Amino acid sequence: MASRITRRSAIFGATAAALSLQVDGQSGSGTVERWGIFEISLHGPADGNPYLDVRLSAELRHQNRVLDVSGFYDGDGAYKLRFMPDSEGEWSWTTRSNRPELDGKRGRFVCSKAQPENHGPVIVRDIFQFGYADGAVYCPFGTTCYAWAHQGDALEEQTLATLRSAPFNKIRMCVFPKWYAYNNVEPQYYPFPRSSSGENDLSRFDPLFFRHFEARVAQLSALGIQADLILFHPYDHWGYANLPAEVNDRYLRYVIARLAACRNVWWSVANEWDLVKSKTLADWDHFFRVIQESDPYGHLRSIHHSKVMYDHAKSWVTHASIQGDQFDRTPEWRDAFQKPVVFDECKYEGNIPRRWGDISAREMVRRFWLGVVMGGWVGHGETYLDPHDVLWWSKGGVLKGESAPRVRFLRELIDSAPPGMKPMPASYYPCLARAGEQYLYFLDYHQPAEFAFDLPAEGRFRAELIDPWNMTITAAPGEFHAKAQLKLRGEPYQAVRFRRS
Amino acid sequence: MASRITRRSAIFGATAAALSLQVDGQSGSGTVERWGIFEISLHGPADGNPYLDVRLSAELRHQNRVLDVSGFYDGDGAYKLRFMPDSEGEWSWTTRSNRPELDGKRGRFVCSKAQPENHGPVIVRDIFQFGYADGAVYCPFGTTCYAWAHQGDALEEQTLATLRSAPFNKIRMCVFPKWYAYNNVEPQYYPFPRSSSGENDLSRFDPLFFRHFEARVAQLSALGIQADLILFHPYDHWGYANLPAEVNDRYLRYVIARLAACRNVWWSVANEWDLVKSKTLADWDHFFRVIQESDPYGHLRSIHHSKVMYDHAKSWVTHASIQGDQFDRTPEWRDAFQKPVVFDECKYEGNIPRRWGDISAREMVRRFWLGVVMGGWVGHGETYLDPHDVLWWSKGGVLKGESAPRVRFLRELIDSAPPGMKPMPASYYPCLARAGEQYLYFLDYHQPAEFAFDLPAEGRFRAELIDPWNMTITAAPGEFHAKAQLKLRGEPYQAVRFRRS
Repeated sequence: MASRITRRSAIFGATAAALSLQVDGQSGSGTVERWGIFEISLHGPADGNPYLDVRLSAELRHQNRVLDVSGFYDGDGAYKLRFMPDSEGEWSWTTRSNRPELDGKRGRFVCSKAQPENHGPVIVRDIFQFGYADGAVYCPFGTTCYAWAHQGDALEEQTLATLRSAPFNKIRMCVFPKWYAYNNVEPQYYPFPRSSSGENDLSRFDPLFFRHFEARVAQLSALGIQADLILFHPYDHWGYANLPAEVNDRYLRYVIARLAACRNVWWSVANEWDLVKSKTLADWDHFFRVIQESDPYGHLRSIHHSKVMYDHAKSWVTHASIQGDQFDRTPEWRDAFQKPVVFDECKYEGNIPRRWGDISAREMVRRFWLGVVMGGWVGHGETYLDPHDVLWWSKGGVLKGESAPRVRFLRELIDSAPPGMKPMPASYYPCLARAGEQYLYFLDYHQPAEFAFDLPAEGRFRAELIDPWNMTITAAPGEFHAKAQLKLRGEPYQAVRFRRS
Repeated sequence: MASRITRRSAIFGATAAALSLQVDGQSGSGTVERWGIFEISLHGPADGNPYLDVRLSAELRHQNRVLDVSGFYDGDGAYKLRFMPDSEGEWSWTTRSNRPELDGKRGRFVCSKAQPENHGPVIVRDIFQFGYADGAVYCPFGTTCYAWAHQGDALEEQTLATLRSAPFNKIRMCVFPKWYAYNNVEPQYYPFPRSSSGENDLSRFDPLFFRHFEARVAQLSALGIQADLILFHPYDHWGYANLPAEVNDRYLRYVIARLAACRNVWWSVANEWDLVKSKTLADWDHFFRVIQESDPYGHLRSIHHSKVMYDHAKSWVTHASIQGDQFDRTPEWRDAFQKPVVFDECKYEGNIPRRWGDISAREMVRRFWLGVVMGGWVGHGETYLDPHDVLWWSKGGVLKGESAPRVRFLRELIDSAPPGMKPMPASYYPCLARAGEQYLYFLDYHQPAEFAFDLPAEGRFRAELIDPWNMTITAAPGEFHAKAQLKLRGEPYQAVRFRRS
């Protein structure tokens, strides 16, 4: 049987049924750009329970290199394998299956140069930083819309439209639907087939759910946004937080088989793992191992806590995903984990009657600055009351707050800084610097009228007074070096940048 | 030899030479108000070294009660004993001395009812509170002018004039002069006689220094301001931080003999004890013991740290004097020490290029509110750059900042609250309350648009929205009880008060 390869584009404004993963692979002599998705479609048995009965994988070869990729059942006798080639040149593939009609299929394709806007997946770089696989700069400035992909097309498309002009290049989002305060709606799709009385058939998946979800992930990719996919979370009323162990593993492998070929995917094993009472620490360790085994590309892996921090030093964790606002502990955590530190949840800008969802825009902006100059990364979220309970933090929609433009302002400063900026450990005020080139200070609630900043005795530097809230950059007259005194505004929450002349 | 008793009033605007302690005792059948100062003056030997050679004390008797009071040498053959009677009625006194001309002198006086503005010394009340000895409310809202009494008359009188209309009822001030950044002037008086080449005669004291100092303390008393007297500090270039052990003890006993009869005196054994490198922890413990032995009235005793906290649980410490802004640790410290917790130094409002002296007025106001609703007390200070280096924090002068009026606003709210207000341990937002009567919330950087505050199901409460910065109190319509929803402003740094209708 010949393989059938599909090429479709993500379509904004399409109905859910028309939504599908953006795939650019073609069979035989087809061409796929580097870090694009090559998809192999096969026909196989539809009887019995293909999710349990049929095993399908492929060996992908490039010169002497071999990668194992798992396939998945997509319903109606359709079987698929997805692959993200990371090297240019000719690749070949051969399937393996316990079913003869799926076994031993072969093909070839060429991996071409990536398109200019395609920089590949994000990886860890220089211990504490992130970067695109092609070497391009990637500094995470993320937001949080936990359940945006389960809200129906109208709202989901509004969310995508918002994201298109928002400053965020990462989004935290749950695979499973969410049930919680302000989140008491049933989704359009469910991950497991569901009887009218609400019983899950945990022996199968519902391909519609996953087709829809992965199409949204692909749309994020087209916007240059990393999808920090939360695989488990406690906000549940369907039973997804308390699945049997073998279903958890099958679910992880199915998600990875479907989604790992998307270059913008990160794996967040849990949101608030310590609030999921049905799972032990050993379970979480096990999930990390399953993900490592199943993901041929080694996408970023993290786990997010509520009160009890997971040991981010464990080898399978690629970066620390922190809840809280203890930015002054960033140096300690960098030292302890030797990994990037991401404050994925430092509370949300908003006005709901919850301590975690009622901080002011100014406080949010302050937190972004503080986290970044201390050597971490910070995540955004918005929780303004809404007559229809559409809060950005969980459902998406539109941004109502005032911090997002200021996050863009900071992001532009950081994106344009020289590589290798790191926190200066002995700095009097917090400072992110590349020694001898650039120094970015944030003074938080301090308001000195003047200060003698520590600059090298060699070289001359120009100073700029930066107002993070008003988003202004004002050059200070003169040049500076050594302990040169700089006159400041005497106002709190200001920043200062020195750049070599 | 007959005793000579003086009665003089503290005179604002007087020259330093004319300044003297306010004393209202008279000999024989004289009358002293309760918690006033009864002073006995005697003539004795002026030859040799009276500071070392002459011992003088008195027994003060009231019915079956006997107190020992140490006298002191005041120069020119003058010996004095000062006593603060705490009980109304007849007192008698008998001196003891190793010199016959000072020994066995006797007299009587009557202690009358205190004047209305005289509430006696401040004591600890209800474990975590303070109060006046007569039962009147005393909630400490202090400021810091470390060296104000060593600045010469013009500036000192300006400081007193400022204090007269300022909201502060406590002031932290050093007995020894201070040498430090912005504090590089020589004082008019020195505690020890000093040669022209700057050598201290540590075997004697200079009575002029102490007469001047105690007059300033008495002037504070007249303004209703507690003098939190710092006995040792590290900011020195005269040698006072590194005196021989026997001189330290003699100095403590001399200060106490002169000043303990002032009802507004508190003993702060050190400012930043851990920065005084010449003294060990055992030395500080010893100083506390000397003070306890020497002070017949048991004035409040504390010690203030920089980085290393003293163990405030030690029996001789009456309250914890904290440096820092860890207001969220107040419950822990209350539990650990079972004493009032005073954040005597939470940084200063100002604009000098020091992290501890450059916080904004809004941040200072925030800290006062946070500290108070968490169950502590907070101290003020101001460090604005000045062309003549007159910074309030150390030299006094005038207040330039914006926090002081807001401290008054808070003080009035707290002074007028029912007694027994304490932090509610499980409150969602920090709350100081007397259960069933009054609830004072401070929401810090939170800005919920509405909130269901925890109120008793019984009773009805009126709500007020309080803006700590704009100093407004706005009644909310209606009455509240149980989990009644209150609409808020949706702005940060707001407070809410509920009072039983």
